[in-house]
Amino acid sequence: MNRPSNTVKAIGEQGLLQRLQRFCPSDMIGDDAAVLNLEKDRALVVTTDMLVDGVHFSDRTTSPEDAGWRAAAANLSDLAAMGASPVGITVALGLPGEVAVSWVEALYQGLWECLQCYQTPLVGGDICRSSVITISITAFGQVEKERTISRFIAQPGDAIAITGFHGCSRAGLELLLHPEYGQHLDEVSKKALIQAHQRPKPRLDVLQHLDNDTRRRIAGMDSSDGLADAVLQLCRCSGVGARVDRQKIPLPPALRQFVSPEQALDYALYGGEDFELVLCLPPPQAEILIQRLGNGAAIVGMITEDSNVELIDSYGIYSTQTLTLSKSFQHF
Amino acid sequence: MNRPSNTVKAIGEQGLLQRLQRFCPSDMIGDDAAVLNLEKDRALVVTTDMLVDGVHFSDRTTSPEDAGWRAAAANLSDLAAMGASPVGITVALGLPGEVAVSWVEALYQGLWECLQCYQTPLVGGDICRSSVITISITAFGQVEKERTISRFIAQPGDAIAITGFHGCSRAGLELLLHPEYGQHLDEVSKKALIQAHQRPKPRLDVLQHLDNDTRRRIAGMDSSDGLADAVLQLCRCSGVGARVDRQKIPLPPALRQFVSPEQALDYALYGGEDFELVLCLPPPQAEILIQRLGNGAAIVGMITEDSNVELIDSYGIYSTQTLTLSKSFQHF
Repeated sequence: MNRPSNTVKAIGEQGLLQRLQRFCPSDMIGDDAAVLNLEKDRALVVTTDMLVDGVHFSDRTTSPEDAGWRAAAANLSDLAAMGASPVGITVALGLPGEVAVSWVEALYQGLWECLQCYQTPLVGGDICRSSVITISITAFGQVEKERTISRFIAQPGDAIAITGFHGCSRAGLELLLHPEYGQHLDEVSKKALIQAHQRPKPRLDVLQHLDNDTRRRIAGMDSSDGLADAVLQLCRCSGVGARVDRQKIPLPPALRQFVSPEQALDYALYGGEDFELVLCLPPPQAEILIQRLGNGAAIVGMITEDSNVELIDSYGIYSTQTLTLSKSFQHF
Repeated sequence: MNRPSNTVKAIGEQGLLQRLQRFCPSDMIGDDAAVLNLEKDRALVVTTDMLVDGVHFSDRTTSPEDAGWRAAAANLSDLAAMGASPVGITVALGLPGEVAVSWVEALYQGLWECLQCYQTPLVGGDICRSSVITISITAFGQVEKERTISRFIAQPGDAIAITGFHGCSRAGLELLLHPEYGQHLDEVSKKALIQAHQRPKPRLDVLQHLDNDTRRRIAGMDSSDGLADAVLQLCRCSGVGARVDRQKIPLPPALRQFVSPEQALDYALYGGEDFELVLCLPPPQAEILIQRLGNGAAIVGMITEDSNVELIDSYGIYSTQTLTLSKSFQHF
C-alpha cells in the first residue's frame, strides 16, 4: 500500500518534476523547449510511440523499471531501423493522481538506464493528469542522407539478414505469465528468456558494422512486430516478394529447451518485440555483416521478383506456406 | 449515435491510418521514422505535450476540430517562445475502440488546418488503444543558435513586452460553459472571445519582426499558463524581479464589454491559453517591436534587480501587490 503522501497527487506536478530532473541534462531543463545541436549535412529522423497501462505493459509482467527500459528501447530501435544515431528523446506522461511517486521514479530509472547504454539524453517532457498511465515517447536521431535505411528499397536478389535471435521475448512473456511452464528449464535459460522480454536491446550497435562497403543501399526495418511482419512489410513497401527458409532461422538453445521446435519457430516468426533488425542487402555484404555480428545473426532468405512471400523448407519436411500477417498483433 | 461500423474498433488500426494519411506528406508515410532535412548551422528545438479528454479538452466546450487546432497551436507556440521556426510535428493518439472515426478525422482536420497556417508538416505518429482519448504531440523547429529566445537571460532594465491581448481565451471558455453570461454582448464580441478560446494563434509571425537589431538578446516565453505565470517564470529563471503596471495591460473591447475591469484584469493575468509571447528586451527595441505588431502588443512593465515581482498601479488607485502563482492552473 502506498501512503497518500507518496502519491503523484500529494507532491503535485512541480514536486514530481523536481524528482525527475536528475534524469535530464541540467542544461535541458526549464525552457519552453529543448535545444539540440545536430551535426552538419545530416538529416533529422523522428519517431513516436504511445504506451498505455494494461495494453502495452502491466504490473503483472513488467516492473516500472522494465516498462521504462522497453519504452526507450522500442524508440531507439526505430532509429536503428532507419540507420540513425540517437540525439535525444522526449517523454510525455499521463498519470492518475494516486500513482506512487516511487513508481514514476522507477519508470524514469529504467528509461534512463536504457538511454545511458546508448549515450542518449532525455531532453524534455510533459506530465499531466490522466485516468490511465500513458507514456508517449518521441525519439530523434541523425543520419547521413545516403546512409538512410528504408523499407522501400529492397531489390530482387537481396539476401534477408537478421541481426540476432528471434522468439525469446515472446517466450519470456509466456514464462512471466505462467511460471509453471518453466519447471523443466535451467535457471540460466529461464533468466535469458525473461531478460529478452524485460530488457530488449535496440540494435544501434549494428550500424557501426555497416561500413561504406556494406552500406551502399540497405533496405530494412526492425522486428518489433515479429520477423514475419518485418519481411511482409519490407516486401509490400518495396513491391517485391521473398522466400524465407524455416531451416535458416536460428533458434537459441534456451528457446528450444522451453518449447517444441514448431512452437519455437512460431514465436520467432510471430512473437514480436525482439527488436532485431531485418536487413535486405546484396548477398556478399550480408555474409560479411552476419559474420561480424555472430550471436544469432543469419541470412534467412532472399528477396524475389514476384510478390509472393513464402516460408519454404530447404530440408523438404514441411510444404511451402504463404506468410501472412493474420497472426500478428492487432492494435484494436 | 454512431453506427458500430463507424468506430475506430470497426475499421481497425490499418483502416484508421489509411483515413489519416491525407494529412501527412506522402513521402513521410510508412517507414520506421520520418526523415527531415534541417538547414545548416541551426539547432534543433523540441517540445512535447500530452492532452487528455476530460482534463485538457471536453466535448462540452471543444469540438474535435478545435481540440486538434489547440493541440497544434500550443506546441507551435512553444517553438515561437524559443524563437524557432517549425519543421514538423508528430502525433501519438490513444483511443478507446468505440470512438467514432469521424471524430478522429475531425481532430486531424483541426490539427492540419492550424499546421497549414504555419507551413508545418505532420511527419509521423502512432495510434494505440486506450481507455481515454489521449493526444501527445511533439513539435520540432530550428533556430540559429544566437537567436534562441530563452527564459534565462532577462536583465534588469529590460522592458517586458507582450505581443497581444490577454484574457480573451479565458472569457471565451466562460461563454462556452455559461452562454447565458453573454446575453448583453453583441455577436461580434461574443464570436471574438469564443474564437480566442477555440482557435488561438501561436505567434510565430512575431519572429520575423525580431530583426537583427531588435534580436540581439531576447528573453521570453509564451503566456500559455497566463501572463502572471510567464512574468514569474521569467524572473525565477533569470534571477531577477519585475514591476508590471496594471494600467499598461491592454484589455480588448470585447473583454471589457463582457466583465468588470477587475475581472478582465484577472483573466488577463491568470486566465492562460492566450499563446502570446512575453518578451524581455531593451526598451528601445521593445518600442519598435510593439509598434510593428500593434493590435494589443504593449510594454507592460520592467525587469528589476531585486527579486520581487510586483503588480503596481501607475494611476495610484490600487496598492502594489506581489504577483504569485497561487491562482495558476495546477495539473494534479
